[in-house]
Amino acid sequence: MAIIPQCILDAAQELSHLPGIGPRTAQRLAFYLLKRKSEQNNKLATSIEALKDNLHKCPECSNYTDNEGKCAVCLDPSRNRSVLCIVESPIDAFNIENTAFQGLYHILHGTLSPIDGITAKELELEKLFERIKTIAGQGELEVILGTNPSMEGESTAIYIENHIKDIPNITITRLARGLPMGADLEYIDEMTLQKAFEGRYQK
Amino acid sequence: MAIIPQCILDAAQELSHLPGIGPRTAQRLAFYLLKRKSEQNNKLATSIEALKDNLHKCPECSNYTDNEGKCAVCLDPSRNRSVLCIVESPIDAFNIENTAFQGLYHILHGTLSPIDGITAKELELEKLFERIKTIAGQGELEVILGTNPSMEGESTAIYIENHIKDIPNITITRLARGLPMGADLEYIDEMTLQKAFEGRYQK
Repeated sequence: MAIIPQCILDAAQELSHLPGIGPRTAQRLAFYLLKRKSEQNNKLATSIEALKDNLHKCPECSNYTDNEGKCAVCLDPSRNRSVLCIVESPIDAFNIENTAFQGLYHILHGTLSPIDGITAKELELEKLFERIKTIAGQGELEVILGTNPSMEGESTAIYIENHIKDIPNITITRLARGLPMGADLEYIDEMTLQKAFEGRYQK
Repeated sequence: MAIIPQCILDAAQELSHLPGIGPRTAQRLAFYLLKRKSEQNNKLATSIEALKDNLHKCPECSNYTDNEGKCAVCLDPSRNRSVLCIVESPIDAFNIENTAFQGLYHILHGTLSPIDGITAKELELEKLFERIKTIAGQGELEVILGTNPSMEGESTAIYIENHIKDIPNITITRLARGLPMGADLEYIDEMTLQKAFEGRYQK
């Protein structure tokens, strides 16, 4: 391995820190970069460096934004302000944005995980509760608990539910469980199938 | 999608140009980078930018090197100078370096592909032929045609073979074909199985 120049090893090492990229893939990527024009590599490098410089969290929903103040969704007067969807990460909100959803978001940037030191304080849940109270004070509000159907997502949803259920004017909902599109009953896990039966609807 | 800040779109766009990274993975990587410390991202960016600045091709074997002149292998007096392995790309040489091979390399940086405008001139084959003549002039030389067992690799190997077979003192070999380690006869293709039969050896 000593014949690999240090700068290739360095690039491969840095690339291997990315999720889903193992040492072999990282090495292959480094060699691929070598074959490209320098300008292309510089563009990639610049876009990575610029990523965090231009972003901050929206003071309202905590989503990433390159606006000076609030994010595009929070500023948009056409959004439905009586529906608030709470999600774990910005990428979740961006995925939901491809559906017909027209409400507001709130980004937790994680889930409760006391073992990792992530408590209600780290997720700034007080800020969320205040936000819900403010919106609910102005009229009916549906809060969609859009955390993942995982152990952590579930417990975070339950924690939030317990803290907001007594606020007047709010309805709390959770995203439906059931068969994903294209699923095969032969391969689906029992838990999902159980939920699909419980949630069956009349045609 | 309009709610995704431009700098995230830019980074995802640049990342999606890398092989094996589709638009979804690129987006996920961009969001992952957002969660990391800026210093880590800057290290990654710097390593990508530095990649090509510090490298040039060895004047002898055309492998990438960060040495001023020849590469580490060509300079190493302990290498066996009577064996020369011709490969398509630097990564092939680096993989072979993990085996017991102790000879010299020659990197083609591609294969002959007249349809893509890659001819003997682009691969600097004249330089290779000269190198082989020079080494063979000093004693016996084994030339291993280490191109890939693909259509392009085969035709490149045949082209090289035809041009060097009359040089005195040289033996031309090709890497063995057969079953890869861990292979399953049930799933192996007929061509490989055929080659494995042809090349069977006595225990």
